[in-house]
Amino acid sequence: MKPSNTSPRAADAPKTDFPESFPRSHKVALEIEHGGHTLSIPKRRIHLTSGESLDVYDSSGPQGRDPRQGLAPLREPWLQARKGQENVTQLHYARRGVVTEEMAYVAAREGVDPEFVRSEIARGRAILPANVRHPELEPMIIGRNFLVKINANIGNSVVRSSIDEEVEKLRWAVLWGADTAMDLSTGEDIHETREWVLRNSPVPIGTVPIYQCLEKVGGKIEDLDFDVFLETIEEQCEQGVDYFTIHAGVLLRYVPLTAKRVTGIVSRGGSIMAKWCLAHHKENFLYTNFERLCEVMKRYDVSFSLGDGLRPGCIADANDAAQFGELETLGELTDIAWKHDVQVMIEGPGHVPMHLIKENMDKQLETCREAPFYTLGPLTTDIAPGYDHITSAIGAAMIGWYGTAMLCYVTPKEHLGLPDRDDVKQGVIAYKIAAHAADLAKGHAGAQAWDDALSKARFEFRWEDQFNLSLDPITAREYHDETLPADGAKTAHFCSMCGPQFCSMKITEDVRAYAEEVGVEGEEALEEGMREKSAEFRAQGGEIYSKSKA
Amino acid sequence: MKPSNTSPRAADAPKTDFPESFPRSHKVALEIEHGGHTLSIPKRRIHLTSGESLDVYDSSGPQGRDPRQGLAPLREPWLQARKGQENVTQLHYARRGVVTEEMAYVAAREGVDPEFVRSEIARGRAILPANVRHPELEPMIIGRNFLVKINANIGNSVVRSSIDEEVEKLRWAVLWGADTAMDLSTGEDIHETREWVLRNSPVPIGTVPIYQCLEKVGGKIEDLDFDVFLETIEEQCEQGVDYFTIHAGVLLRYVPLTAKRVTGIVSRGGSIMAKWCLAHHKENFLYTNFERLCEVMKRYDVSFSLGDGLRPGCIADANDAAQFGELETLGELTDIAWKHDVQVMIEGPGHVPMHLIKENMDKQLETCREAPFYTLGPLTTDIAPGYDHITSAIGAAMIGWYGTAMLCYVTPKEHLGLPDRDDVKQGVIAYKIAAHAADLAKGHAGAQAWDDALSKARFEFRWEDQFNLSLDPITAREYHDETLPADGAKTAHFCSMCGPQFCSMKITEDVRAYAEEVGVEGEEALEEGMREKSAEFRAQGGEIYSKSKA
Repeated sequence: MKPSNTSPRAADAPKTDFPESFPRSHKVALEIEHGGHTLSIPKRRIHLTSGESLDVYDSSGPQGRDPRQGLAPLREPWLQARKGQENVTQLHYARRGVVTEEMAYVAAREGVDPEFVRSEIARGRAILPANVRHPELEPMIIGRNFLVKINANIGNSVVRSSIDEEVEKLRWAVLWGADTAMDLSTGEDIHETREWVLRNSPVPIGTVPIYQCLEKVGGKIEDLDFDVFLETIEEQCEQGVDYFTIHAGVLLRYVPLTAKRVTGIVSRGGSIMAKWCLAHHKENFLYTNFERLCEVMKRYDVSFSLGDGLRPGCIADANDAAQFGELETLGELTDIAWKHDVQVMIEGPGHVPMHLIKENMDKQLETCREAPFYTLGPLTTDIAPGYDHITSAIGAAMIGWYGTAMLCYVTPKEHLGLPDRDDVKQGVIAYKIAAHAADLAKGHAGAQAWDDALSKARFEFRWEDQFNLSLDPITAREYHDETLPADGAKTAHFCSMCGPQFCSMKITEDVRAYAEEVGVEGEEALEEGMREKSAEFRAQGGEIYSKSKA
Repeated sequence: MKPSNTSPRAADAPKTDFPESFPRSHKVALEIEHGGHTLSIPKRRIHLTSGESLDVYDSSGPQGRDPRQGLAPLREPWLQARKGQENVTQLHYARRGVVTEEMAYVAAREGVDPEFVRSEIARGRAILPANVRHPELEPMIIGRNFLVKINANIGNSVVRSSIDEEVEKLRWAVLWGADTAMDLSTGEDIHETREWVLRNSPVPIGTVPIYQCLEKVGGKIEDLDFDVFLETIEEQCEQGVDYFTIHAGVLLRYVPLTAKRVTGIVSRGGSIMAKWCLAHHKENFLYTNFERLCEVMKRYDVSFSLGDGLRPGCIADANDAAQFGELETLGELTDIAWKHDVQVMIEGPGHVPMHLIKENMDKQLETCREAPFYTLGPLTTDIAPGYDHITSAIGAAMIGWYGTAMLCYVTPKEHLGLPDRDDVKQGVIAYKIAAHAADLAKGHAGAQAWDDALSKARFEFRWEDQFNLSLDPITAREYHDETLPADGAKTAHFCSMCGPQFCSMKITEDVRAYAEEVGVEGEEALEEGMREKSAEFRAQGGEIYSKSKA
């Protein structure tokens, strides 16, 4: 399971920048007992200057490990008991009433009842992607009754980037909050890159197996067949991949429906399968052999991420017959996967104007019987290449609110180039914003507590706390320091936008003290209080601002 | 009207970076005749390598002018005929059936009928902010049946920044697409800064007059009174300010409603008026003297931007009794302003979770009888200081779609510091995205044409066109060049994300050609075609990718 020693290209020294990235945060482990095992659930505790603290969901995994050693196989003891089983999926256990260690783990992680986790998985409304060959995984759950998750894509391509860069990109992505990662490598070393990624990944790893298949047949799409696909997924199952994007819904009859589109087929996997169908005038071999995929995947508990190969690639193509035709087929395939107790989520678009987003969510829930939706954005306009993390964060937040369980990030480089380290961070932060905004809109109490803590810190001029409660404390602090660099400014009772004389927060302190005295009821009491307060206020010298701090 | 010669602090040399910022774009003037005048309406024409071009709305104004000279007073001839009139508002003329030069100008700018512009203004559903003392203005319209507009805030504060920086910031903001600008200066030189800004502004300028009033009374809120306010707005009317934010809806009885809020009152103007009310135990003097404001403003045609002094400053405080109480009063004031034929828009929040955004829009339309809504964001979460251009672009796009006519930008420095040049650009671009996404969702044909042009360029591998059609061509090109710097790559039939072998766009070309041949109808024809195509495809050597370009 360890990466081979022949390619020690990963970074020489173990890296962590957790302490610098999240000042006054530290990782805490919530320990619970389940099935004779002690499960240790990670949280990030943010210590405030008020003496309070806030625990937030933490996806960053063990930091500072040597990539050549990989992460500790924390699930190994749990998996012992399942050895030799024919079907080891979480769905299989959930339907039989079993709360696995993984389910107990995510229940504690999400702050919900383990039985609720089990029931959501059992009805297919949530998935817990966790290949039994990926023991390093810190279990997480994807479903719309849990926190909205985000995925970051990594992966080299023929054009550039190397294995150590990919492992480091993964570490960096989870540091900022990625809940899963897809390894979209298409170049050489595809197997070895994946091995390094998996052995160092605390989050589920997804792949698009057809990419490796295409490498195996020398890039000739028409030479693809089900055998090479089967061999490839066996190989990847063995390595520990947690979910596969499989474009089994690109049917022959849907392909002509893309003919009048502005941008045709924009999914790589989708276009490959469409081309194969054309070359052979045959139905998609992933569709015709779908049950055989289930047979393999249930032995490892690899989840389906049913690919939307016909997703729209521009605003003009959104919600068309090709897209919704494929979605119907994905619903049909969901039923087949569930028959085998294989977990399923459904991939979604893409490029969709705001007024058509909800239709996507509603149709998906109905057609795929509430299997979790996993969307790429959607981008809400095409005219801002260079800023597609923003065009898509808008759509992602909305569809997350409407019910999408996981949002695939988009970086500023989308449509233009390969994301570098900073692009990955920008994409992850934009998507943490979208996911969190969705959690708030869905009424998640834990999400609201985070906003309240930050806003309270803001109102009370606890600048350090405001920075440290931010998704990106260092950037928040840097922006503040550009205008008011002095250390004193971090305890100042005003901010640099308004200066000391125009600080609304400061003025409000007086207003509040007064209003609490008078209460918000009777108009009479109010008038009376006003008179009193006015006199008192003037007696104190009529000073509006506390001058001591400015 | 010219800035005084005693403070020639503006940049020495006229600046423009229009040509570098928008390669292969140039300004064109659409000339129309109206009332004996030739009106010259600006557009930006983007020349494509396909030989086509796309004209887009252009707010950038005359570039390359010497700030010491100011812009040409293009409206002066139009204004001659209105001299000596008691009421010169666009609303006044519109209600009397007159299509002014300004209305004809915006009609051509928006591509609609002049009579439609007049009728929208007449019913108060749109405003055309255009002080008769601001002849340099290129007229624009704010209303939900027109393109969604964005505002950029500029303005020095006591903490830092100078006059020439503000003029340059204005030029920079309109270059990237700001439709109006608010000068929020609060420090010294407030009058002179504004003079320079106005004389160099092709867009409407808004102010918050209470800031200058507070300077005049030495920062003592309790010393404010209506006389100083009246004197101040007379001064600003004379200078040419186009709209005033006036917090006349912060009534005494609403103030205690903010007592239990997490962040109290966050509007500067709102907190000043609340404090004044407390100090005097009297009703807001802007409310009690509202008609006197109308008397002054109608002589210049300065529009009201009725301030939401009690807007929520955090997610927890959204849509509360204080906020909606004030909105009721703003509706009442709208009627009074309309009685005087003074144009009105209504300011809105702020910080609002997604699920509460629509309620804001619906209530505003009803309460203020469809007067245009002008919102700050709203921010959809509080936990991302440093990224509030993104947290708020989400809310701005949504509320724009729901019907907000103008979106006040938020920069990455919001809550942290004063925006610099790059922050202004980041804020403007994020808001151009939000506004454009809203236009698309509202079904604006011109907006859709822009997306289609870019997507078509993308599909046809016209990289240069894809860059030049972007909101920010230079950034798009830079991002592309980081991965594939060679000039040849800009004509390559693949992009760097996938490499030549996995290009879905390329594959689609074949799919499309085939599908067009077969048609999308009969299944039989399809099967027949498939057989033919398969044979033909193999006969050609079965090559999937054109190798000539890679």
